[in-house]
Amino acid sequence: MLKTLNTGDLTPKEEITSRIESLRKEMTGKGIELAVILQNVDIFYFTGTLQRGVLAVSAEHGPAFFVEKSIFRAEMETPLDIIPIKRDKEVKDILIEKKMLHGRCGMELDVVPVALCERWKSILGKDTMEDLTQIIKDVRLVKSEFEIDQIRKSGEIVERVFEKGKGIIKEGMREIDIDAELLAEGRKRGHQGFLRMRGLNQEMMSVYVTHGYSTTITSGADVPISGIGLTHAIGQGASVNVVKRGIPVIVDYGGGYNGYITDETRVYAVGTLKELFHKPYEVARDIIDETMVFAREGTDATEIFAKAFDRVKAAGLQDHFMGHGEGQVAFIGHGLGLEINELPVITPRHRMVLKEGMVFAFEPKFIFPGEGAIGIEVDFVVRKDGLERVTNTPVDIVYV
Amino acid sequence: MLKTLNTGDLTPKEEITSRIESLRKEMTGKGIELAVILQNVDIFYFTGTLQRGVLAVSAEHGPAFFVEKSIFRAEMETPLDIIPIKRDKEVKDILIEKKMLHGRCGMELDVVPVALCERWKSILGKDTMEDLTQIIKDVRLVKSEFEIDQIRKSGEIVERVFEKGKGIIKEGMREIDIDAELLAEGRKRGHQGFLRMRGLNQEMMSVYVTHGYSTTITSGADVPISGIGLTHAIGQGASVNVVKRGIPVIVDYGGGYNGYITDETRVYAVGTLKELFHKPYEVARDIIDETMVFAREGTDATEIFAKAFDRVKAAGLQDHFMGHGEGQVAFIGHGLGLEINELPVITPRHRMVLKEGMVFAFEPKFIFPGEGAIGIEVDFVVRKDGLERVTNTPVDIVYV
Repeated sequence: MLKTLNTGDLTPKEEITSRIESLRKEMTGKGIELAVILQNVDIFYFTGTLQRGVLAVSAEHGPAFFVEKSIFRAEMETPLDIIPIKRDKEVKDILIEKKMLHGRCGMELDVVPVALCERWKSILGKDTMEDLTQIIKDVRLVKSEFEIDQIRKSGEIVERVFEKGKGIIKEGMREIDIDAELLAEGRKRGHQGFLRMRGLNQEMMSVYVTHGYSTTITSGADVPISGIGLTHAIGQGASVNVVKRGIPVIVDYGGGYNGYITDETRVYAVGTLKELFHKPYEVARDIIDETMVFAREGTDATEIFAKAFDRVKAAGLQDHFMGHGEGQVAFIGHGLGLEINELPVITPRHRMVLKEGMVFAFEPKFIFPGEGAIGIEVDFVVRKDGLERVTNTPVDIVYV
Repeated sequence: MLKTLNTGDLTPKEEITSRIESLRKEMTGKGIELAVILQNVDIFYFTGTLQRGVLAVSAEHGPAFFVEKSIFRAEMETPLDIIPIKRDKEVKDILIEKKMLHGRCGMELDVVPVALCERWKSILGKDTMEDLTQIIKDVRLVKSEFEIDQIRKSGEIVERVFEKGKGIIKEGMREIDIDAELLAEGRKRGHQGFLRMRGLNQEMMSVYVTHGYSTTITSGADVPISGIGLTHAIGQGASVNVVKRGIPVIVDYGGGYNGYITDETRVYAVGTLKELFHKPYEVARDIIDETMVFAREGTDATEIFAKAFDRVKAAGLQDHFMGHGEGQVAFIGHGLGLEINELPVITPRHRMVLKEGMVFAFEPKFIFPGEGAIGIEVDFVVRKDGLERVTNTPVDIVYV
């Protein structure tokens, strides 16, 4: 019987089995015989536990899960057999013994550093490594009902944090003080501690409290609103900027529960919101309403973007949509799961037909240089007959 | 005149110049003509700004800093000339024009993923890439007085957080509730938001509040005490475990100011501390006192470990030192800077002679299965005549 020292749900055995089966099928389709998986999130996805080790999966023979540390925790949490190792070099002989080391071998070349890949090529006696990136992204793309349940629990943390916002946001408060309170509330309600974003230099906070000027400053991050941050060494997140009347306070919060990420944005305002922000807020709301009416399994992501952009253009807001100037980004939504930059991306650039079980954040936002920003972000689960919201928090502006 | 939207100190021009000079000198020594730097922390170190882009440094001709986004922020923060680009492919022609694209080329192969390295090989028309890892680690190893000043400011956040601990830690409180309060306090006092750790799968929290059982559980992380965490999907940090009388509450907190990390640990206790923990606490304290007496520029890190371990053995505590069983780690200290796993490592495994300006965290800790843990962690700056403490917080157990 699997158990964990934590209170959360463990990944059921059938889930692990079916994920590994999907991987093996994709590998067979691409002619890859052995997958050598090193990234911790991928290891967690395919094993149910997050330990230091390596997961080898043979298309022909199935998995061999090598664990360096912690064997104690791994044994509790994964339904797979564990092969304890002291050093990575031990893996080769065991793979040979299990007849797993033949044919083309693949790794996660989007995240595995060159030096580590070279080390594994040398350990396994391989001259080349195929790229597993697309295979793994495809396997992880459609979420199971178990995963969607985890995402809903992650969303419950988001609901509590937005509720807390009502009680604490006040005129004259610094963004960073609001950030601190919401961060604390999230942890008390079970937030896992940080969010994961795949790839080199992909960093993020759990909460972004931004307001007025702060919302309009661009950063190196690929997001419509990054905030100024406390330091130029990070350059994103809350700053010491102070809340003024009539200007939106943007709270963008990422829930995290058992690894699963949610990501929603709400607007708070002290006093009456400045006229400038009314129309863009209505357009953001209309885009969400319309998308919920037509999008479903079978809809192409580019069509969602196109319909939204039609509304933006009709309102004459295209220069402010999803950033301004060099800060404008080319998407209105991004996939969610164990990482915050999963597929599907809702962009005009890549076609992707939605399937039941895909999960994505959808975030029409408008930025007005010198003034501030406004927008909404909600998370959707794709169903055969429409989109399901992840949280129950209304999208209305919260007047505080 | 350089400026930033943030309140922190910008890296002075002379700093940037001297860092790039050191890099060029090391490159020349290793026969590398062109460095192509992609990791954001390294870019920040050598340019003073953290944007999406690439820093090319020619041993012969010096730097060319290409920025994709945000050019607005980069122009304020770096003393280097900026070459704005829309796409990475533009870099090649500009490097040719500047006569920088010849000879052996190197990248940060410890962190740059295979796919990204291949992309750059193709952009630059190179068949091979040398490894810059050791060169960059060596350049970053000794901190300037400017950097030490940043580290002291980072330490001031740590002092405020430890002070806050006195007022909030109480019997019956969950680790996670203490975590939430300390996290919030840190942010309000200027904590940058997260800490950086170099390498694949290197993840960490800003604060670890652990107690009793939680301190004794191993994890995949290479630390003596990782905590159980809230979820097996992360497996480290505070848990829902509740504070009991007489058992140490371990608060391990990482400060972060303008990118610079500090990392100290203090012990809090409700009521009288159980007898078991008295001797190990005294040994930890003696190790720190003795190290401060003899260690200085010229001391070998292996000697620091050896002397500490002599005390540990004399007290019969070697089975509990720096973890127990599979959780035991092979170091008692680690370098600090823009990342929390810098050089020097204080371990019996690698010789490294200390030099003035090196900064490291030093953490004698003892773990007792089924009971709890105790220990102290302080940060040191290496000086010609001894070690300088970074914070002013006493190492005494805080009875609450």
